Amino acid sequence: MNKGKFITIEGSEGAGKSTNIHFIQNYLNKKNIEFISTREPGGTPVAEKIRDLLLDKANTSLCDDAELLLMFAARSQHLNELIIPALEAGKWVLSDRFTDASFAYQGGGRGLSWEKIAQLEQWVQGSLRPDATILLDIPVDIGMQRVRERGETDRFEQEQLSFFNRIREAYLKLANDNPERFHVIDTQPSIEDVHKQLSVVMEKLTVQV
Amino acid sequence: MNKGKFITIEGSEGAGKSTNIHFIQNYLNKKNIEFISTREPGGTPVAEKIRDLLLDKANTSLCDDAELLLMFAARSQHLNELIIPALEAGKWVLSDRFTDASFAYQGGGRGLSWEKIAQLEQWVQGSLRPDATILLDIPVDIGMQRVRERGETDRFEQEQLSFFNRIREAYLKLANDNPERFHVIDTQPSIEDVHKQLSVVMEKLTVQV
Repeated sequence: MNKGKFITIEGSEGAGKSTNIHFIQNYLNKKNIEFISTREPGGTPVAEKIRDLLLDKANTSLCDDAELLLMFAARSQHLNELIIPALEAGKWVLSDRFTDASFAYQGGGRGLSWEKIAQLEQWVQGSLRPDATILLDIPVDIGMQRVRERGETDRFEQEQLSFFNRIREAYLKLANDNPERFHVIDTQPSIEDVHKQLSVVMEKLTVQV
Repeated sequence: MNKGKFITIEGSEGAGKSTNIHFIQNYLNKKNIEFISTREPGGTPVAEKIRDLLLDKANTSLCDDAELLLMFAARSQHLNELIIPALEAGKWVLSDRFTDASFAYQGGGRGLSWEKIAQLEQWVQGSLRPDATILLDIPVDIGMQRVRERGETDRFEQEQLSFFNRIREAYLKLANDNPERFHVIDTQPSIEDVHKQLSVVMEKLTVQV
């Protein structure tokens, strides 16, 4: 049996991940592609408990190294318990965030060493990388306005504007360094236009199936 | 102000850590040495939440890499929030387990790479190492009998005998490789005899204070 494709969706806060993931799910359903939809941090019962720790606003004292190690602990569990078995069973995996988010948030945002993150990536993933990464991009001020309109914020969403600027820059650098894997979608235009851009990407990814 | 001394207590299950930590606490009190007593995994509110994840028997699916990364996430938090500030304020720190336990349990017990653990140790601790480590040693069968008599077991204590044999071997190897730092106490004899051994060690450690 063929392995499934591993698609990750990345983006800064307010870039429209939920809406566009929903569009991708519908697209895969229409193509009769069997897939699972998951998210990071989280995706399995233990990893979701780690997510709770990471997002809880009460954990104001959480230090940067602990945050990074918790992310990779959750990722290791997610890979072993859910992602790898699904791919090996021939299913596609659609994940709301993955390791690029660690480079963007803990590397770009917190200023942790990219080399350290790359080493953890190697340890936890071996040679496994996403087949495609869809980066939903939006200028930080517009994205943050959307988040504020949504109401309640988590531990990350409470950070300063400069934090999110560094995250966006890191994401765009990752996209630039990995042009084969990354598909950057500008989510500023109308929803119809964004879906048109997404359809082009999904068409390319599904054409060989 | 002088830095405090960092003393860690290690040992296999049922080696008598609680009783002997109590003896050491009394010893330091009698010498009027200011100290804090803490434990791993845990020691701070966030790290204790990670401890709960690690010890919870419900988390049967927790994979070995995630276990190791959670241990070091908790350790990073413990160091930054509690241990380093206490040492810098001149207090002694007495910790029920520290990084040697990762080498023994995740390295010896689970069979994870010692090199990987040593790399995480370097990242999270920099050059900080315990000033002294007291290893409470007991043959595995006797220790496990004590644990069973105590009643309720946690996720680690439910492992097989061979797991604990590998842990004891790893601890004895660490002691052998670090003779300056390690003080091995045989906890098979009478409690009076064990306390006599401990007094000799504590006398050496406190003589320069």
